[in-house]
Amino acid sequence: MVTIDEERFRESFESYSRIGATENGGLHRLTLTEADKRVRDAFVEDLAELGLEVRVDRIGNIFGRREGTDLDADPVLIGSHLDSQPYGGRFDGQLGVLAALETLRALEDEGVEPNRPIEIVNWTNEEGSRFPNALLGSSVFSGGTELETALSLTDGEGTTVRDALSAIGYDGDHPVEPFDIHAHLELHIEQGPYLEEHGNSLGIVEGVYGMSWLRATITGESDHAGPTPMHTRSDAMAAAADAVSEINRLPNRLSADAVSTVGEFSIAPGSINVVPDTAEFTVDVRSYDDAVVAEAVERVHEEIEHACSRHATSAEVEALWNIESTAFDPEIRDVLEGVADDRGIAYERMPSGAAHDATRINEIAPTAMLFAPSVDGRTHNEDEFTEWEDCVVTAGCYAEAVHQLASE
Amino acid sequence: MVTIDEERFRESFESYSRIGATENGGLHRLTLTEADKRVRDAFVEDLAELGLEVRVDRIGNIFGRREGTDLDADPVLIGSHLDSQPYGGRFDGQLGVLAALETLRALEDEGVEPNRPIEIVNWTNEEGSRFPNALLGSSVFSGGTELETALSLTDGEGTTVRDALSAIGYDGDHPVEPFDIHAHLELHIEQGPYLEEHGNSLGIVEGVYGMSWLRATITGESDHAGPTPMHTRSDAMAAAADAVSEINRLPNRLSADAVSTVGEFSIAPGSINVVPDTAEFTVDVRSYDDAVVAEAVERVHEEIEHACSRHATSAEVEALWNIESTAFDPEIRDVLEGVADDRGIAYERMPSGAAHDATRINEIAPTAMLFAPSVDGRTHNEDEFTEWEDCVVTAGCYAEAVHQLASE
Repeated sequence: MVTIDEERFRESFESYSRIGATENGGLHRLTLTEADKRVRDAFVEDLAELGLEVRVDRIGNIFGRREGTDLDADPVLIGSHLDSQPYGGRFDGQLGVLAALETLRALEDEGVEPNRPIEIVNWTNEEGSRFPNALLGSSVFSGGTELETALSLTDGEGTTVRDALSAIGYDGDHPVEPFDIHAHLELHIEQGPYLEEHGNSLGIVEGVYGMSWLRATITGESDHAGPTPMHTRSDAMAAAADAVSEINRLPNRLSADAVSTVGEFSIAPGSINVVPDTAEFTVDVRSYDDAVVAEAVERVHEEIEHACSRHATSAEVEALWNIESTAFDPEIRDVLEGVADDRGIAYERMPSGAAHDATRINEIAPTAMLFAPSVDGRTHNEDEFTEWEDCVVTAGCYAEAVHQLASE
Repeated sequence: MVTIDEERFRESFESYSRIGATENGGLHRLTLTEADKRVRDAFVEDLAELGLEVRVDRIGNIFGRREGTDLDADPVLIGSHLDSQPYGGRFDGQLGVLAALETLRALEDEGVEPNRPIEIVNWTNEEGSRFPNALLGSSVFSGGTELETALSLTDGEGTTVRDALSAIGYDGDHPVEPFDIHAHLELHIEQGPYLEEHGNSLGIVEGVYGMSWLRATITGESDHAGPTPMHTRSDAMAAAADAVSEINRLPNRLSADAVSTVGEFSIAPGSINVVPDTAEFTVDVRSYDDAVVAEAVERVHEEIEHACSRHATSAEVEALWNIESTAFDPEIRDVLEGVADDRGIAYERMPSGAAHDATRINEIAPTAMLFAPSVDGRTHNEDEFTEWEDCVVTAGCYAEAVHQLASE
């Protein structure tokens, strides 16, 4: 059994949390910025101190390899991401990287040498908030995104990923290509309220929700808000409001786990006394059941159509992105349950509403995830918080599970 | 009886319409821009050709005075505005100024000298689309807005009205102060569909709708769109959509003439996979019945409150502006009806859903308005159109009514 050093783990967490810290206790550490460079430097230094061979690939993913006793065995891959949302929290991503780092340190402390190698990774641009595509480094690694496509993405100021990597010195020369992986395990915060609501310290993630992203554009006619009677209007805002109201009611009709969100919304021309002729909004629908997502998408189309016919407007609805639900590897989940049972830890099996780098790696290797509870389910903001004892419990299970997987 | 020269009227209309013309047959002649300077220059030249004394006041209103036979009599004030909306139409405002100009020319043609003087006016910044306050020149003139306040207003680029007036040479030195006015008459397009729907060529305006402008800010909490279940969300967009849906249904419940419009709407943070924590929108409610406006405002507050309580959000609703309905002078309306009856013109009495410069002048002098029909009720865009024969009919009645008022 491997035991983590709680104090060292906490010191690492506090030290890394100072890099790109915000005044309100969060992190503003957008991918491939100066703050990201500094946290990457700290990570590389920590890997070197452990005597690991460090590789940086062409999309900036950082790997460190600890050899096992069997030089031909496929490695166990562990880690997460160190970039943050704008004014995001300290736990999202970082906790998983530091739990992986602490796992390696604990193995080292106790002189444990499993037969399999262990690879630790920090993925580039998980958040997708500076450069558009989330899960970027893991997508290129797993073959879902072309390297050239990824390198050519631009941020709001027109800087490419290629130039941003080069500017911080993380344009590595290692090819971005998947290697054979025995098992991949990622620790992350839940980012939802269920673990806390149910009083559990640990979530064993069964898989990830399927989701669809849509963009609707409603077209009406702009008119003077005074002399134009209600019955002759083609009010794009009125149609959009009706549609969004119904879209927000869909999940309750479809499934207990479904969610729908309208996260972007704009109208034109946008003048207080002018009936809007254009409304544009996005829809994000998710469920662990792909059939529910498909039905939700169909209903979104219907609701927009109904709203448009009521308001004499027309709509175009574009499918932006669709991803089917992911089931994680049942054998790794069994290992996790065994560890939790041995330690007498209250846990639950649950799906993840958010995609993670592990979703990508699951496409090429047996994969699973652990969740630590998020207080009030808050995330992607400075209030994001996980009780430290929950971090320790989850990281302890993580280290032992990695140990067991590397010993298989 | 005064008869207008249809051909001259049309030539003037076409000539003025070339100043600031858009490719699609509209006008882009924002107040106090270079295009506005050119149309003002044309107007001043036309007044000078008629031998009128021209005055420009400190807010840039242009007056021309034609003396009557009685030097002590109060004048009849005629005119409208020459500025346009961004990519607006050729008829809004301009038709009223040119009908007034044609009226003076027709009187001159026939050597008619009524006992009262006639003052023609072009008001500054009726539209309020470059500088925020609509009806600006007429508001300062009638005492509703302080001159210094008006001169200090800024456009989107930080230019003040003061500097904009000076840049085009229309920072006049005449004081902006009301004089005694016997009667004021403004011709304008309807900007609504009723005259066309009812097959009438002329609207005799009884008064102007009362209106209230409100701004609502709904505050929730931003959360990740995936792992945050519907029941723990405080979704500002969802609350706003429900509220806006209900606000758009209010008029049909309150009164046949009431209208409500949500013309501005924005959310934050505005990311496809983030539950919005803020939604902000404006509400414009109008009716000819002030009690209906007051009840609509109360209901708007209630609907926002209900929507917020359903979605665990909170709202602040700010009253931006309130203006009571205006009744125009019944005696001037009688003159207009007499003229229409004499000419056998199909007309209707109607309120105006939009405020006009005449609304302001009505506060200090007996005032009325005439409307020409708007095809499909379209206005404030390049498609704005009035059949030329309707322009001629309306301008003909206008000229004769001015003649009769000036002869009182």
